[in-house]
Amino acid sequence: MTPEEFRRQGHAVIDWIADYWESLDELPVLSRVAPGEVRRALPAAAPEHPEPFDSLLADVDAIVVPGLTHWQHPRFFAYFPANSSPAAILGDLLSSGIGAQGMIWATGPAVTEVEQVVVDWLARAMGLPEQFLHAAPGRGGGVIHDTASTATFTALVAAISAATGGRSPEQGLGSHRWTVYGSTQAHSSLVKAAMMAGLGSDCVRGIQVDPRTQAMDVRALERQLADDVDDGFQPLFVQAAVGTTSTGAVDDVEEIAMAVDGLAWLHVDAAWAGVAAVCPEHRDRLMRGVHLARSFVTNPHKWLLTTFDCSVLWVRDSALLTGALSITPEYLRNAATESGEVVDYRDWHPQLGRRFRALKLWAVLRTYGLEGLRAHIRDGVALAAYVEELVASDDRFELVTDRSLSLVVFRLRAGDDATLAAMEALNASGVAYLSHTRVEGRAAMRLAVGSWRTTRADVDRTWAALQEAAEGVLGG
Amino acid sequence: MTPEEFRRQGHAVIDWIADYWESLDELPVLSRVAPGEVRRALPAAAPEHPEPFDSLLADVDAIVVPGLTHWQHPRFFAYFPANSSPAAILGDLLSSGIGAQGMIWATGPAVTEVEQVVVDWLARAMGLPEQFLHAAPGRGGGVIHDTASTATFTALVAAISAATGGRSPEQGLGSHRWTVYGSTQAHSSLVKAAMMAGLGSDCVRGIQVDPRTQAMDVRALERQLADDVDDGFQPLFVQAAVGTTSTGAVDDVEEIAMAVDGLAWLHVDAAWAGVAAVCPEHRDRLMRGVHLARSFVTNPHKWLLTTFDCSVLWVRDSALLTGALSITPEYLRNAATESGEVVDYRDWHPQLGRRFRALKLWAVLRTYGLEGLRAHIRDGVALAAYVEELVASDDRFELVTDRSLSLVVFRLRAGDDATLAAMEALNASGVAYLSHTRVEGRAAMRLAVGSWRTTRADVDRTWAALQEAAEGVLGG
Repeated sequence: MTPEEFRRQGHAVIDWIADYWESLDELPVLSRVAPGEVRRALPAAAPEHPEPFDSLLADVDAIVVPGLTHWQHPRFFAYFPANSSPAAILGDLLSSGIGAQGMIWATGPAVTEVEQVVVDWLARAMGLPEQFLHAAPGRGGGVIHDTASTATFTALVAAISAATGGRSPEQGLGSHRWTVYGSTQAHSSLVKAAMMAGLGSDCVRGIQVDPRTQAMDVRALERQLADDVDDGFQPLFVQAAVGTTSTGAVDDVEEIAMAVDGLAWLHVDAAWAGVAAVCPEHRDRLMRGVHLARSFVTNPHKWLLTTFDCSVLWVRDSALLTGALSITPEYLRNAATESGEVVDYRDWHPQLGRRFRALKLWAVLRTYGLEGLRAHIRDGVALAAYVEELVASDDRFELVTDRSLSLVVFRLRAGDDATLAAMEALNASGVAYLSHTRVEGRAAMRLAVGSWRTTRADVDRTWAALQEAAEGVLGG
Repeated sequence: MTPEEFRRQGHAVIDWIADYWESLDELPVLSRVAPGEVRRALPAAAPEHPEPFDSLLADVDAIVVPGLTHWQHPRFFAYFPANSSPAAILGDLLSSGIGAQGMIWATGPAVTEVEQVVVDWLARAMGLPEQFLHAAPGRGGGVIHDTASTATFTALVAAISAATGGRSPEQGLGSHRWTVYGSTQAHSSLVKAAMMAGLGSDCVRGIQVDPRTQAMDVRALERQLADDVDDGFQPLFVQAAVGTTSTGAVDDVEEIAMAVDGLAWLHVDAAWAGVAAVCPEHRDRLMRGVHLARSFVTNPHKWLLTTFDCSVLWVRDSALLTGALSITPEYLRNAATESGEVVDYRDWHPQLGRRFRALKLWAVLRTYGLEGLRAHIRDGVALAAYVEELVASDDRFELVTDRSLSLVVFRLRAGDDATLAAMEALNASGVAYLSHTRVEGRAAMRLAVGSWRTTRADVDRTWAALQEAAEGVLGG
């Protein structure tokens, strides 16, 4: 592809995206393809001769788009949003064009330093305590990971290293009987992290939650910690969830920190909800006690308009990360690293290679500005509050938990089967896409607002379709 | 940003990239900024009000570009290439615009199935044995990871699970005395993987290499395996390197497999060199014995024109991955998964969220075609062969190892200090960028060709500058 062709095709792809976005309203949110359908539409081997890029675009239209569940659709309300804003997309496009590898400072100083600056910006914007900042005295700082799963795993590995006085990176886990804690509603990545770190899922204690709030029962945590210590276990890692995946429940980090009392590494998983702290009205609830945690993760790639992947992990003491993950082969030795004046981010995460992901977060923070980001979060919260009203106004439905920010969890009073059947009918209609969960054993629907495209009209249309689906299920 | 603004700014970013590429020839390859310089040029907090995207682009020009080491520069010869081709960039841009999450099949059927198809395409193109294909009977298949570090770690975690009969994901490592093997030249990510998996670096045996070829001494591996078994250790994981980072050495996978004899998981790290197997003339050397391995990784994001990140891990038995990594919370349960007819890739790697990375690999395979990819690999090899000639033609220099594909490792006969000083002078000149290594204790320069932009004229200019640097170091 010549430079001129790149310009022409590049403009065509930009236009394709703009056209795709404009077409979303007409597309079924949830893909209707059957297993194997996309695979069967494609040849078994790569072409021998070059094909024009246009033929790829044609296949994207003909084969890929029908096989997509449209996460950028204004009526995608399942899971959590994975917002891909224009600014972030263009920031990430710049990163592709620049094609830099920021594994160490020396291989791309700006890759590292822009990242240090923008994670500090985001930390300040959310009111994250000062000790998590690069700019503050001490060894705190943030780093962009791909996902909160990786961030949590990394924090766990650092916790193991810290608990062994730095011996585990060389000597392994040894014979410690470690235990890991999260509520029963903690994200599944906590268990996966324990599996990958060699601890095994059996060591993860799922602490019961308050049936109403779905937040961790801190008294139960205290009891479990005490019992485990009595039984010869060594508490290693406690994860507080600020916004659970199921219902958006917010654990009381401060209370949890008191219960843990320095006995274990306290990690805050605020993957979805954390970014809402850019609004002062949510900050108290989301940040209370965070100064007592050792690590904190939130994902701008969920609600904060930053194209996947962009999950930011902050730690108060980066030496605990680098102590767990650092190794320096000859070909990475360099004067800047040895001077100690720079950050080499490859020691802050599992991977060596790293993309210039800070560009997209920088683009979001600048082109929206903090007031734009607050407005975006507030729109999502306001629309969810409107959903809450709609649920309350229809006797057939009931809220399952209190709305948490932009997440509403509700069900049909008629029971689990009716709830799931109505949701599936709505999803099958193509009008909107919700996902389900179970709360205290009972099925519920989740409606998570968060796309910058979603309007009140989208909520109205979704609600009307859901009412129709409920009617079909319940009998007219 | 309105759709119209997105089109306008998107075209501007595409043009910025094309202009950046055109300017590369004039830019110093290695950044000249001092530690902290980029950070100091940026404000301490995010802007309160939105800024136009143009102001971001202006800062990219003024602050970021001078802070970059230009990995896409035609005279970037350090480490390994991180090729960002136009086709891949546009494929990845499509992925950003679509913004789909392919964590499970149901959340984006095409994300999963296009990936299954293109990793099969690449496997066939390289002559990877049939049992690694999704399309073949059995449980083989490939998956796109971010980096080979993650792929190797994942293979190691799967090996632990397999060695415990599937007990470790629940029960942890237990009291096994496991050992892990790679040559002394194995990539540092092997040690990092052992650290993260809870085994610790002490269990990693660095097997000596043949001093001339730098490939693993398989007799030494046999002896170490036998000694370890005698000493009560349990060999767990053996990594064969097909193209080491230091010198491009290729371990004899077939011989290693014979030595291992099913005692441990055999993983092939062909991160850089593997993709060269798209050329039949390199296939025998790179693929010999691979049918005996359990896992194989290569990175299209290095030499194969696919914008970072895109590392493909293939396994012969995917049940060993999913057995090690699978957990299914309620909100991810769905009919397609339970039917067993689909692949849920989130069980094939540490992360849950996943980007539609197959699009960029698909774009590369189609727009270059296999003949285009072969021509690209052959260009790199031919240019490296030319470098080899230049080194041989100048008495002051000598080859340290035989050229491996497109990597040439050489030094000044005058010794380590002169070698490093000449390389540093070249790098400081801005003309080109090489990186160093140590071979058998002695310093050497590495020149890795691989960018689609590099021409014979670039090699000539680099060589002339290096000769000048050598002259400066050695005295006129």
